[in-house]
Amino acid sequence: MASHLVDLTTLRTVEWTRDGVRLIDQRQLPNRLTFLLCRNYRQVARAIRDMTVRGAPAIGVTAAMGLALAAKRSRHSDGKMLLLDVEKAAEIIRATRPTARNLFWAVERMLGKAREAADQGRDIRETLAAEAQLMADEDVQANRKMGAYGAELIQDGDTILTHCNTGTMATVSYGTALGVIRSAISQGKKVKLIATETRPRQQGARITVYEALSDKIPVTLIVDSAVAITMSKGMVDKVIVGADRITRTAVANKVGTFMIALAAKHHCIPFYVAAPTTTFDLTIEPTAMSIEERDPREVTEINGRQITPKKGVRVFNPAFDLTPLELVTAVITEKGVLSREQIQNMTKIRPNTGG
Amino acid sequence: MASHLVDLTTLRTVEWTRDGVRLIDQRQLPNRLTFLLCRNYRQVARAIRDMTVRGAPAIGVTAAMGLALAAKRSRHSDGKMLLLDVEKAAEIIRATRPTARNLFWAVERMLGKAREAADQGRDIRETLAAEAQLMADEDVQANRKMGAYGAELIQDGDTILTHCNTGTMATVSYGTALGVIRSAISQGKKVKLIATETRPRQQGARITVYEALSDKIPVTLIVDSAVAITMSKGMVDKVIVGADRITRTAVANKVGTFMIALAAKHHCIPFYVAAPTTTFDLTIEPTAMSIEERDPREVTEINGRQITPKKGVRVFNPAFDLTPLELVTAVITEKGVLSREQIQNMTKIRPNTGG
Repeated sequence: MASHLVDLTTLRTVEWTRDGVRLIDQRQLPNRLTFLLCRNYRQVARAIRDMTVRGAPAIGVTAAMGLALAAKRSRHSDGKMLLLDVEKAAEIIRATRPTARNLFWAVERMLGKAREAADQGRDIRETLAAEAQLMADEDVQANRKMGAYGAELIQDGDTILTHCNTGTMATVSYGTALGVIRSAISQGKKVKLIATETRPRQQGARITVYEALSDKIPVTLIVDSAVAITMSKGMVDKVIVGADRITRTAVANKVGTFMIALAAKHHCIPFYVAAPTTTFDLTIEPTAMSIEERDPREVTEINGRQITPKKGVRVFNPAFDLTPLELVTAVITEKGVLSREQIQNMTKIRPNTGG
Repeated sequence: MASHLVDLTTLRTVEWTRDGVRLIDQRQLPNRLTFLLCRNYRQVARAIRDMTVRGAPAIGVTAAMGLALAAKRSRHSDGKMLLLDVEKAAEIIRATRPTARNLFWAVERMLGKAREAADQGRDIRETLAAEAQLMADEDVQANRKMGAYGAELIQDGDTILTHCNTGTMATVSYGTALGVIRSAISQGKKVKLIATETRPRQQGARITVYEALSDKIPVTLIVDSAVAITMSKGMVDKVIVGADRITRTAVANKVGTFMIALAAKHHCIPFYVAAPTTTFDLTIEPTAMSIEERDPREVTEINGRQITPKKGVRVFNPAFDLTPLELVTAVITEKGVLSREQIQNMTKIRPNTGG
């Protein structure tokens, strides 16, 4: 175990290398810290789909690197033909997971850059490789800024409940909600963490606990359904979670977030969302958002062993839920802390373009 | 699997036999329907503690049979000495699990009968064996009555969400919340079930799904944290859960119940509790109630395999939570459907004494 207690405030979950896109294989955590090298964009798409890499910001940058890889591996030297290959890869990558806004934002930004380069006769391969790496750096910068803004909301001695994983493993590095906690701690504040297990894939029990222990943050694990009693016992000062997509009326995040927000409201506990502006989608109606439903076996099997009777049971396995914005105290972004009212009245948000 | 699709509306979870107390080993479900014969009261106590048998009404009757067994196995023929053996057994059995009211109710009733028999010079062994069997029969009768009252609240076509297991396996037979659903179906109503997994011990995924499939009730399984999104999609008409202890201000039930009640309130969905009057405890303040905390390994290990990092993680693993009575639409008992206001104003409730 000690061998992989690396510094998670600087480790990168996704990295562009000479040979392809290098990802931490998060399905192996916490037992093994291993890396997977994706040598072509199809392998990148598969890694997103099977959750080798997960977390909205990490998925966004991985998608961008997948498109840079598609350009790099294209057999075409002609700009237009190469662009077609990138566009084909974009279709495959878009289809991997439907909910996280960052994925679509990243694909759009990369396609824009590719088309611009083609129009201007610049090298698409180099343009996209540079852009994807820029986006990775921007993600880390955004997390650090979010951390600085968010840390102001945390008091010395706070116990913070979080859901799923929002740390280094959910981003390129450092994290969103967990990044805010890291920043508060680096300011010298004592902060304790309560991590929810996060069924069905246990990202809390597996990954958040792993990150907290690596950082020596005191962490207590609870099952998802113990949130309300934990709050009722006065054990929680604040909730901070991440987001997969933020609209003007709701926050899509890992299934269970909505129930935590309801429990927080009942107990008058502040409920914060920490997410980069690349997560915002101000045009969509929440009802039009596609909420991913995943394989029933995530629920009926644990560690490959059947829990339920083998035949006859139906499963509803949504990966996300929609928390009404009325339940959200504020959203911590890299551009500052936005109140509920500010988001409701927003018509436009301009994610960093690193320019 | 087919071999143990027995009739769960008549099967008995706990039974008094010539050789001891026979229990279904619920830890083996749904893979195997096996029985455990407890030959002495210590084995009965262990079976309650390790959740071979669980569910408040089932625990109550098992405890009663444990005391009858203590009397039967006592080496004393003198009434006073035999009574001391029963009282010693009562202490051991009381200490098994702290939250379910039925356990304490059953022990008190059995001790009362034992003392009465001793005073009157009647055979304590026979008295207790008869009383425990009477209590088992009363439980089944109470469930059938609860079913009849509760079924009136269910409409043809309803989809009902339930938590944990409240069926035959939680009682002597038939069930509380699941008994209500069984009764509605036997009236010819079409009812669908949504079962929550119920972490950490998966009584929903393992036992409720098993009971529903045995009864051919259409059942959909969800993780505990998917309740709110399931409700927001209009998939739930009513919630019915069981209870471990009902006070004038709160309902203690399997951890997660409180969060389901909050989600039901948010979505204006009726939230019913089905429990026999033996579950009521009108004198205690909820804050004085002992909420059992169980082994951390229930959370850190699944199927004996470690999920979290091995060292350093603390766990808070409460087995129950307290749902404020304000979130409860009504409580279905064997004496009728009680409104929230009726319970708040109650000073006394007289459980069946089978007389």
